[in-house]
Amino acid sequence: MRRWSIYTPEGMQDILFEHCYFKRSLENDIRQLFIHSGYKEIETPTVEFYDVFSGEQNLIPQEDMFKFTDSQGRILVLKPDMTIPIARVAATKLKENVWPAKIFYVGNTFSFSELGGGKQKEYTQAGVEVLGVNSPEADAELIALAIQALKLAGIEEFQIDIGQVDFFRGLMEQSGLPSIEAEQIRELIDTKDFVGVEQLVNKHNIPDELKELILNLPSYFGSIDVIDELSKKNVSGKALRALEYLKNVIAILEDWGVGDHISIDLGMVQSLNYYTGIVFRGFTHSVGYPVLSGGRYDNLVQRFGKDCPATGFSLGINMIMTALERQGKLQVPIQGGYYIVYHKDARKKAFSLLSELKAGGAIAELDIASMDIDSAKSYAKSRGIDKIVVIDKDSNIEII
Amino acid sequence: MRRWSIYTPEGMQDILFEHCYFKRSLENDIRQLFIHSGYKEIETPTVEFYDVFSGEQNLIPQEDMFKFTDSQGRILVLKPDMTIPIARVAATKLKENVWPAKIFYVGNTFSFSELGGGKQKEYTQAGVEVLGVNSPEADAELIALAIQALKLAGIEEFQIDIGQVDFFRGLMEQSGLPSIEAEQIRELIDTKDFVGVEQLVNKHNIPDELKELILNLPSYFGSIDVIDELSKKNVSGKALRALEYLKNVIAILEDWGVGDHISIDLGMVQSLNYYTGIVFRGFTHSVGYPVLSGGRYDNLVQRFGKDCPATGFSLGINMIMTALERQGKLQVPIQGGYYIVYHKDARKKAFSLLSELKAGGAIAELDIASMDIDSAKSYAKSRGIDKIVVIDKDSNIEII
Repeated sequence: MRRWSIYTPEGMQDILFEHCYFKRSLENDIRQLFIHSGYKEIETPTVEFYDVFSGEQNLIPQEDMFKFTDSQGRILVLKPDMTIPIARVAATKLKENVWPAKIFYVGNTFSFSELGGGKQKEYTQAGVEVLGVNSPEADAELIALAIQALKLAGIEEFQIDIGQVDFFRGLMEQSGLPSIEAEQIRELIDTKDFVGVEQLVNKHNIPDELKELILNLPSYFGSIDVIDELSKKNVSGKALRALEYLKNVIAILEDWGVGDHISIDLGMVQSLNYYTGIVFRGFTHSVGYPVLSGGRYDNLVQRFGKDCPATGFSLGINMIMTALERQGKLQVPIQGGYYIVYHKDARKKAFSLLSELKAGGAIAELDIASMDIDSAKSYAKSRGIDKIVVIDKDSNIEII
Repeated sequence: MRRWSIYTPEGMQDILFEHCYFKRSLENDIRQLFIHSGYKEIETPTVEFYDVFSGEQNLIPQEDMFKFTDSQGRILVLKPDMTIPIARVAATKLKENVWPAKIFYVGNTFSFSELGGGKQKEYTQAGVEVLGVNSPEADAELIALAIQALKLAGIEEFQIDIGQVDFFRGLMEQSGLPSIEAEQIRELIDTKDFVGVEQLVNKHNIPDELKELILNLPSYFGSIDVIDELSKKNVSGKALRALEYLKNVIAILEDWGVGDHISIDLGMVQSLNYYTGIVFRGFTHSVGYPVLSGGRYDNLVQRFGKDCPATGFSLGINMIMTALERQGKLQVPIQGGYYIVYHKDARKKAFSLLSELKAGGAIAELDIASMDIDSAKSYAKSRGIDKIVVIDKDSNIEII
């Protein structure tokens, strides 16, 4: 029988020392970026009521959540997503009379289902949400911020794919397909089951040009020329407006000088079904999953009682660390420091020296294990400490 | 029927904006203190196997833990304690050949049972552990570090009560009481049921002086004179050694100049039963619960397969914030900042100015809501922004 007490659960990990130091530095750098961009942090609970993520819209599939009950039998879950709790907070606790509200978070989310590909069941996300504004400038700001965050993290080569789910929704409206079948098509495209898409589309009487557009949706990716190409086709109403909006966002990003990093992908009809407009994902080489994802979700806050457009994105901190590690860029600075060994008679002197060194910004440790010089040397070596301070019984100090 | 989706579970809370900013600053200040004292951070999972905290010793009562199962039916819990997982890591993952190992953490723990008194079911703890050393210097270092941490947090008036559970254990050995009854006495003293203690003690044939010592244990608190007073009584063996150890720790703390904050409490026989020596708790006025607690736990790491003495303490971050708030000291600095409104033709200029300001360390926001000057003024006012930058179509800049 295995002794479970010495293992961590599947998909949950201990993050030790250098990795943890790096993670905290990364989290803090991103936190400072968000703060300096005018965002304010919130921390929502690790545990929420199941109803927050479930309900009619079934935002997160129940099989993806860790579930348990409180003492009164109500179903609780480990937070599977950061955006939905922030929508709850925005609807119930923000007393804004001037919008936008700009919120950020750094925290852990959980997934019960097997995700594979190095993804964890507990992972850290850092992200922002802009509430109360529906403008291309807001979407562009987030994409620009995502780019800044990746650069700050040390990811040099990356690409942000931008999609527009409203374009897909517009095509569906134009096609006259019932909403259940439209949703099926979305899922089929998302899982790249193009045969399935074709079968479903062919069951309906849809104009040929539109049918072709739907079938070829995943091929509309790459440079922003695809937008112009699509504009020339028989696209109208909601789908056309969606294209215009996307074009506008791209134009802003180019004016801001960050156009190099972006690419269009109109086949991106993400699995999270609360998105309503611009969506985007960030990729870098050496990891097969997006290191960031986001988009507009104008109907989500409404679910909690307030009509409020919103857009946001989140960075996968563990995923970024994996990318940096594989790219050979996960480096922790050597910290140096002092180790003080002392004669018992010089105890006061040793402590006052320790306090001075720490107050001066150094890392300093007092011997607490009665080490001789040799032991102190091996301890110092193993800890990256570069100076050993020896204080004799007359409080004379020597640095070796 | 209440809509559970708009509430947070009992004892779980949203921490918003100023509070969250303050909490992160506090966490970071304490993190820096620990780093500069030579400790290295680790992050253990939010979810652990039940067995880590349970088993024969029943370290944490099962009714205190949030429990659920993984897909294979193994029992999982939300981490109810930070020290036990670190003992697991120390036994299974540390490849030290030079001790001590100095570890710190900042993270959330969970309690299923009703705690009352403002305590939360999810709360943040920051703490340190020193592994591999059993010396009065190690215990003293932690108490000195706890004092520094409270001062750093802005708590000005506080007291650290120091106990010694080995003194109690020594008295029990001397009394010859069976270990089950000794444990009952510990629980009775901990819950202040002194009548119960007397009844139990009177059932046995214990020398009068020893009986009196056990009955009066909770009265041995205050200045360090109580140690000398006790030394004169009929105390021997383990109990005497325990007193000597405590005296040694106090002498070190006095040499280090932090004696003012400490007080002895030999009736402190904490509810957590993994402590084996020096134990301590920190109190400040205006909150009825300790803001920190810690102690020596020389047998805990052994449970996970490695014989290793250890000592540690943790600060209750939420409890410290409650204390600071009640003491009128929870203040967040006003941050200032820039809000840039601009003509569409000046979009490039606006973004480059934004980038400049942020790179210079300022908080700066670009208008994303097409605000007029009046809206910008009310937005700025509500967000503590002190400068509005207006850029006209010819890229002329005016600051108002």
